[in-house]
Amino acid sequence: MRLRRDVRGNRFTQQQVPQQVIEQLLDAALLAPSVGYSQPWQFVVIKQQKIKQQVFDSFSQENEYASTLFKGDRQDKYKQLKLEGILEAPINIAVFYQPSDEPVLGQTSIKDVGKYSVVCAIQNMWLMARALNVGIGWVSIVDPNVVKKVLNAPQQNELIGYLCVGYVSEFLDEPELKKSAWQQQKDKADVVSYDQF
Amino acid sequence: MRLRRDVRGNRFTQQQVPQQVIEQLLDAALLAPSVGYSQPWQFVVIKQQKIKQQVFDSFSQENEYASTLFKGDRQDKYKQLKLEGILEAPINIAVFYQPSDEPVLGQTSIKDVGKYSVVCAIQNMWLMARALNVGIGWVSIVDPNVVKKVLNAPQQNELIGYLCVGYVSEFLDEPELKKSAWQQQKDKADVVSYDQF
Repeated sequence: MRLRRDVRGNRFTQQQVPQQVIEQLLDAALLAPSVGYSQPWQFVVIKQQKIKQQVFDSFSQENEYASTLFKGDRQDKYKQLKLEGILEAPINIAVFYQPSDEPVLGQTSIKDVGKYSVVCAIQNMWLMARALNVGIGWVSIVDPNVVKKVLNAPQQNELIGYLCVGYVSEFLDEPELKKSAWQQQKDKADVVSYDQF
Repeated sequence: MRLRRDVRGNRFTQQQVPQQVIEQLLDAALLAPSVGYSQPWQFVVIKQQKIKQQVFDSFSQENEYASTLFKGDRQDKYKQLKLEGILEAPINIAVFYQPSDEPVLGQTSIKDVGKYSVVCAIQNMWLMARALNVGIGWVSIVDPNVVKKVLNAPQQNELIGYLCVGYVSEFLDEPELKKSAWQQQKDKADVVSYDQF
């Protein structure tokens, strides 16, 4: 957990990821908890450069828009950051939530918990990847509807995460956005309280 | 990951959870990835039985409603399941998402990714707990607005997970809902595809 990092395109190497490693990542995902044991996940492992390119095009467009939301120095800094590794990573994995047609035990009061199960699966993969010396970067600057279309996803599925996966030149000792002073680390005391806020 | 379980009230023991263990769980949570390094989490560690009781009351009400959604044999089976350990667990931890007032890097296309960061923190806690022989159960059958009120949570915060935490009499070898045939395990081949659906 301490050594896990979000990895971008400037760190991925071209070393191939063996199928056995991909299977280990998927197996870790499938060990995640899921509400009502619903296992509401779908994984698409992407190797074709043509498909990655279409996702990258969506990133480029969304990132252009995103940069306009930051002002002044912060916008300059934003534009200098490398925020994805879609084309550089040998493997991409798109992770979807697939809603159930029937009521799901535990999902009757808070509908979103089904999606949270899928996130638990992603975090399991991320930790397993690190244990295998494989890096993962989570790209969230994409249009989920474009990704769905590119991957021919069923209408009702929802994109939860788009992951870039590969071996890396290095794992930074601290999160990149902390090192670059984009954002400070919060104090534990400011995010923990006892019995009530 | 393989040995982690969702633990309910019939497994928790009354053995006290030392503060050091609580700190280790929180430290694991704080090592989670977060979009734009936003660390959008808030943890409320609950020990007072009075507060737990109010959350339990919300569970009871929501669970009564939930049971009506399942029909026939399935409803009978539902009613026999022990689905939480709010009062039995020595510690409860409510985990909230705290939205930012400013644009967050990476959260500009898919707003929900901020909440997903909080889920990653929960999964880290869950795995760390298991490594320390501590059980966690995630209760999602509660009214999030009632929990917010009981815990005096700021208006803009969103409840992501309500966790019951404690030592356990046993960790089952497989998920309880699989063992009791409530839900079958899915085949890996049915949830993984390559390049496209």
